[in-house]
Amino acid sequence: MNDDHGPAARGRHITICEVGPRDGFQSEERFIPTDEKIAIVDAMFAAGLRQIQVTSFVSPRAVPQLADAEEVLARISRPEGASVSGLVANRKGAERAVGAGVDFVHGVLSASETHNRKNVNRPIDASLSEMEEVAAILAQGGVALEGGIATAFGCPFEGEVPAEQVGRIARRYQEMGAMRVSLGDTTGMATPVTVAAAISAIRDAAPGLEIGLHFHNTRGVGLACVMTGLSLGVTHYDASIGGLGGCPFAAGATGNICTEDLVYLLEESGYATGVDLQAIIAVAERTQETLGRPLPGQVMKAGPRLRRYDPDATRTAAG
Amino acid sequence: MNDDHGPAARGRHITICEVGPRDGFQSEERFIPTDEKIAIVDAMFAAGLRQIQVTSFVSPRAVPQLADAEEVLARISRPEGASVSGLVANRKGAERAVGAGVDFVHGVLSASETHNRKNVNRPIDASLSEMEEVAAILAQGGVALEGGIATAFGCPFEGEVPAEQVGRIARRYQEMGAMRVSLGDTTGMATPVTVAAAISAIRDAAPGLEIGLHFHNTRGVGLACVMTGLSLGVTHYDASIGGLGGCPFAAGATGNICTEDLVYLLEESGYATGVDLQAIIAVAERTQETLGRPLPGQVMKAGPRLRRYDPDATRTAAG
Repeated sequence: MNDDHGPAARGRHITICEVGPRDGFQSEERFIPTDEKIAIVDAMFAAGLRQIQVTSFVSPRAVPQLADAEEVLARISRPEGASVSGLVANRKGAERAVGAGVDFVHGVLSASETHNRKNVNRPIDASLSEMEEVAAILAQGGVALEGGIATAFGCPFEGEVPAEQVGRIARRYQEMGAMRVSLGDTTGMATPVTVAAAISAIRDAAPGLEIGLHFHNTRGVGLACVMTGLSLGVTHYDASIGGLGGCPFAAGATGNICTEDLVYLLEESGYATGVDLQAIIAVAERTQETLGRPLPGQVMKAGPRLRRYDPDATRTAAG
Repeated sequence: MNDDHGPAARGRHITICEVGPRDGFQSEERFIPTDEKIAIVDAMFAAGLRQIQVTSFVSPRAVPQLADAEEVLARISRPEGASVSGLVANRKGAERAVGAGVDFVHGVLSASETHNRKNVNRPIDASLSEMEEVAAILAQGGVALEGGIATAFGCPFEGEVPAEQVGRIARRYQEMGAMRVSLGDTTGMATPVTVAAAISAIRDAAPGLEIGLHFHNTRGVGLACVMTGLSLGVTHYDASIGGLGGCPFAAGATGNICTEDLVYLLEESGYATGVDLQAIIAVAERTQETLGRPLPGQVMKAGPRLRRYDPDATRTAAG
């Protein structure tokens, strides 16, 4: 516990998993050239990120933007210590992921029945059975499993999702040998209270299982939820370059929390991310140019905290 | 201390002081009709806000938008328990504020020499002497003083501002009889570490003096800083409707933290604000229409947390 994020945070490492190339790019209607995807991922690694969710192994008909999954994975430059992952919902995806040489797979299912049925067209129990087969394929291929739990903090169709349900699924993932569960805030319903409840339920149901947090800033409180996660000792967070993305299929959802804003918050709070702020801002700017529209990230607009202005060139007045 | 904002927060009251009519409107070039200003302030009170910084008592030449300070104050409807304030930088402003019948005055000076000189055209010590005279005028008029400290978490010209300097000014305000100090994050440089340091310095230098926090979301971490304030027991926060405002005279500054996003965060964390979320969202929408451009608030776009969608009318796919 570390209330004020002061000296106790000093140097503690926090892992940021960049999910923009998957969670962000998948929503783009205009195809992003494969070379540009590769250049952006390479620039992310060069900025110091060491975990990137690069793509999805889902049907190219469902997500045509990520139909180049294998090519992107084959051609990116992976620095030492880097881990790349792809999203997988079924056995076929698992086989592709193993073939493509990812380090880990992000398995996807939802904590809410209605969202799971809408998202992957089957009940949660059927998804868990499928995920057991996914886990077996991955184990055989030497690929780790990160157990994704979508709608972990609430469902846009059902409302509240009981924390015990999140704990129950985490336990099943632990039994499958997952290295971590990743709690997805699919439509931006996470709050400090629901985050604390989900973490507590997982620690009860699946002691020792690592927890990752994947927040959306849909209602403006994404980084406030990170503060709760930090105060409860969670050291793994997903974020998206420029605040790109969100689940395009769930009504009302806007962007993921923003990678460079998260780097700024963590580094300024005394945590170590390994990411160079100026370099990751440059990647956000490049991504913005590639997509041809402004992204919601704030630090890319305001610059680093100690950016200095010339008082003689600045107008000011009472206020 | 309350790490997870769970049961311990239940029902604890947090005061939100709405500053949009001053900190926001002052930046608008097009004059907002006096009737519309009054209607918006009245709607804020009707939504449950009980503290509003309505205007500034500065030169109408410097801030023509707020030249109607006296008329707005005379014509708003103040519900029982409501407090209205105006910003004051000198004796003349204090006399106008007393005459206009505010409940308290927000005195303004900066913790950084360069910013103070640029903002009010004198050294900090001269501002403190002037503020003593302001305090005497207010005391005689039965008006309370909230001691504003701009650039409390950093200065766009000088860089870091020592927490001890913030503590020293707070002590001076306490000696003048101020009811509270209000730490201004003038250009969005506050971080969890600088917030904790400033609070600690004030508690050392001016024990028992109430602290209010005024954050800007310039670098995306405004509500994360609120989380730090809450964890350290601060119960008074400024915010601006729709995220309007920021200091228009300090280069790089964008908006204040957003009132309705703050209400959402606090109420969902188990705190009581007295503000009705749907009603304050409606005020944000009205303000947006009045100004004719989108405001940065998030909750006004996504709606309340448990907004339900019809699964049969919603497209979804793996992700």
